Amino acid sequence: MTELEKLFNRIVQRVNINLRELNFDVSPFAVELIPPDQLNKFYAFYGITPDHPLDLHFEHSALAGSYFLGKCRVRNSLLYKSDIRGDELKRKDQQRQFEKFTLTLTKDEIIDIEDSALVKTLVHNYSHDPETPEKFYIKDTLAMDYANIHGSPSDGSFLGPYATVDLTTMRDCVIGAYSYIQAGEISHLKVDPGTIWVNSPGNFNFFYKYPAELLEYYVSLSPDKVPWGILIDFIEERKMEFQRVFDFVNLQEIESIPKTASLDRYAVVLPNIKIADNVLVSQRAYIENSSLGKGANAQENCFIINSSLEGYNVTAHGAKLIEADLKLGVFVGFNSFLCGKKNSRLTVNEGCVVMPHTIIDIDEPLEIPADHLVWGLVRNKEELAKNSIALVKLNAIDTSFSQGRMHFEGKGAMFVKAFKDRIHHILDVNGAFFENGKNAGHAQKNQRLSLNTIQPFQFGANKGMYPNIRILP
Amino acid sequence: MTELEKLFNRIVQRVNINLRELNFDVSPFAVELIPPDQLNKFYAFYGITPDHPLDLHFEHSALAGSYFLGKCRVRNSLLYKSDIRGDELKRKDQQRQFEKFTLTLTKDEIIDIEDSALVKTLVHNYSHDPETPEKFYIKDTLAMDYANIHGSPSDGSFLGPYATVDLTTMRDCVIGAYSYIQAGEISHLKVDPGTIWVNSPGNFNFFYKYPAELLEYYVSLSPDKVPWGILIDFIEERKMEFQRVFDFVNLQEIESIPKTASLDRYAVVLPNIKIADNVLVSQRAYIENSSLGKGANAQENCFIINSSLEGYNVTAHGAKLIEADLKLGVFVGFNSFLCGKKNSRLTVNEGCVVMPHTIIDIDEPLEIPADHLVWGLVRNKEELAKNSIALVKLNAIDTSFSQGRMHFEGKGAMFVKAFKDRIHHILDVNGAFFENGKNAGHAQKNQRLSLNTIQPFQFGANKGMYPNIRILP
Repeated sequence: MTELEKLFNRIVQRVNINLRELNFDVSPFAVELIPPDQLNKFYAFYGITPDHPLDLHFEHSALAGSYFLGKCRVRNSLLYKSDIRGDELKRKDQQRQFEKFTLTLTKDEIIDIEDSALVKTLVHNYSHDPETPEKFYIKDTLAMDYANIHGSPSDGSFLGPYATVDLTTMRDCVIGAYSYIQAGEISHLKVDPGTIWVNSPGNFNFFYKYPAELLEYYVSLSPDKVPWGILIDFIEERKMEFQRVFDFVNLQEIESIPKTASLDRYAVVLPNIKIADNVLVSQRAYIENSSLGKGANAQENCFIINSSLEGYNVTAHGAKLIEADLKLGVFVGFNSFLCGKKNSRLTVNEGCVVMPHTIIDIDEPLEIPADHLVWGLVRNKEELAKNSIALVKLNAIDTSFSQGRMHFEGKGAMFVKAFKDRIHHILDVNGAFFENGKNAGHAQKNQRLSLNTIQPFQFGANKGMYPNIRILP
Repeated sequence: MTELEKLFNRIVQRVNINLRELNFDVSPFAVELIPPDQLNKFYAFYGITPDHPLDLHFEHSALAGSYFLGKCRVRNSLLYKSDIRGDELKRKDQQRQFEKFTLTLTKDEIIDIEDSALVKTLVHNYSHDPETPEKFYIKDTLAMDYANIHGSPSDGSFLGPYATVDLTTMRDCVIGAYSYIQAGEISHLKVDPGTIWVNSPGNFNFFYKYPAELLEYYVSLSPDKVPWGILIDFIEERKMEFQRVFDFVNLQEIESIPKTASLDRYAVVLPNIKIADNVLVSQRAYIENSSLGKGANAQENCFIINSSLEGYNVTAHGAKLIEADLKLGVFVGFNSFLCGKKNSRLTVNEGCVVMPHTIIDIDEPLEIPADHLVWGLVRNKEELAKNSIALVKLNAIDTSFSQGRMHFEGKGAMFVKAFKDRIHHILDVNGAFFENGKNAGHAQKNQRLSLNTIQPFQFGANKGMYPNIRILP
């Protein structure tokens, strides 16, 4: 047995031990999860910037195609084309308020990945758990394709494909495919596929669940198979374009990018594109024949095709926009799939919030009125009516209301405010409000980012594993 | 002042302190030595192979374009396009005989570079000094373009361009341009440019010195200028070809290389070439329209153009062959420049030994008879007669003889045997005698070599410096 196989078996076993009370066995999913002959083919890379500490530690791990930024440690783990973005980690000596507690950090926060397997997974933000302020840990965890672990320390958990856990500490949980969970702290929970759950205890609780038989068409998962469905095929069809950007040591820089914007060297950009001031395009984003207005951003694994973004648009990790026109300030959450067609374009008007994990897949033109919240599956006007609400109406809700498959409890105004605050915060950290040298964010700072590569063993018992590497300034 | 400038100034000062008794100031040479704006442009790379320990340690150094293989540590040093090849280092538990002493190594030998600047320098072989069997050190040393530090621990020394120190421990020495020194141990010595000195105390002593005014035409050095002359221009003219092989992450493999031969991924190969069994072509070698017969090898910085090597030919580090036909077993030493012309080809017959640092530059066809030793500057038949001797004749010498500018003392037979033994040893370690799975050497082992890259800081005070990196299996 190669070192890689031993490592993988050990991770699977550790995850299973944690999930034994849920009677969940990850082994069948694991079989096809990572093609072992791919793990020696791709280099990994890390960013160096004056804005974040350089402190990387890789030990007994496979890292094929993965990206690291900021302070990270990876031990006994298998990362495949994953992004470990530590550019929002907390820093030494910062004071943080957690409810009534004030904490002063004694060291820079670290993303610490141990005994875990992450496939095409994004890890970003910082630990929102005051119990572990200096360590954003991911332990005994298996995450499948296009999962997002966002500000969410994880122990003993399984994330299905396209699952997102956001600002939530999880312990011994199973998160089904295409589920979005933002719930502070969860444990011993088995979440069905397509569950959208935003819970702030005492404040509000938003719950929606995709009809299983309809979700399957978009993302499917069964033991012994790689995930499939439209969302998987969509990316597979565009794989070759990414191959090119990873094959060259130095790519020619694309002209006509404003000095205040940043376009990652590992993004795919196809003609014709327009990029305005303060725009951020992250690695593994794909932009084709589209225009990104001032302060718009496209995060990891975003696809923006034949679309226009008027400005100050957040396109969160993994969101996809096809044949869509987004007006000012439209927010599109994690892994959303907004799929207009050539003669059936989608228009999303000013100030709309498209909830994470929303699927809009239309065959006739569709327009979402300004300042609406949209969620779930929307394939036509009728479904839009069922799965959206004017923000002003939601603002007025004080106890609870149900609409279609969605149920809401608590204070609508707090929910809207939480979202709007967060959108503003995201735009801010991404540098959308940069002006006259002030309010710099990722878009401006990434211009001083250089990318370095590291490579795996090519043969022998360690084939596909990476050497133990420690990198400091 | 940037970190890079501080580092370089500190190295220059340390070398100068060591060379103060020789009244030698390296500062003027240092000024133009390394273009600081180049140091962030080139990545460095290291080899991984199951045949050598993986143990690399880079600390507070600049490494642009340099290559590392085997156990190396580099601290407070500046390496520019240098090759640190630790594939012949001694290994733990090996027993080594040094005259009447038998040493058992308690650990793997390391190449340990500290407070030194090496420019396009090759470091290879192992410490031949029994006083430092586990550490091949290079300390407080400045080596200029195409210097070779071969099995030679060095402390407080300066090597001019194309200087070679071979199997010799040096302390506080200045080695002039294009000088070749093999003398066991030297200290506080200032060696004039173009000195060829092979000394085995009690056995033999070979001495030749190039006429200064003629050598200048080939390699020149003066304060405040980069080195110039034909040998420098020759390489500059072929620089672009190397650019290409360094620019791609994956190059297409060249077909028609026998399975027993190895062609490095960072070698330049231009049509048409023939490569026979057991051939070794190292990184930074340049082969154009030439044929390499069975067991022939081309080491780092070799150029072989419009030439044929019949077989079992050693083309040592930095040797150049242009329009030349080398018969079986011909040896060409370090940095030799054998320059035939299109209608004035050079033929070197079977069993000849071309001494290190020999220049043969002809405008009429020239043939060197079989089994001859050749040295120094040869531009025509007359100079060949003066600067060569039949090995059988040299074998018979027992006391001393002079011929032209060459003086020999001691036992000719021992000198010839020492050379022939060494040639056999070089062919052996390079894998020239590989047959039926036996006698594997670098040519066969390098097929299981993979190359990884590391990159420098791109901006800020550390621009051009490399992160501190520790790499272990």
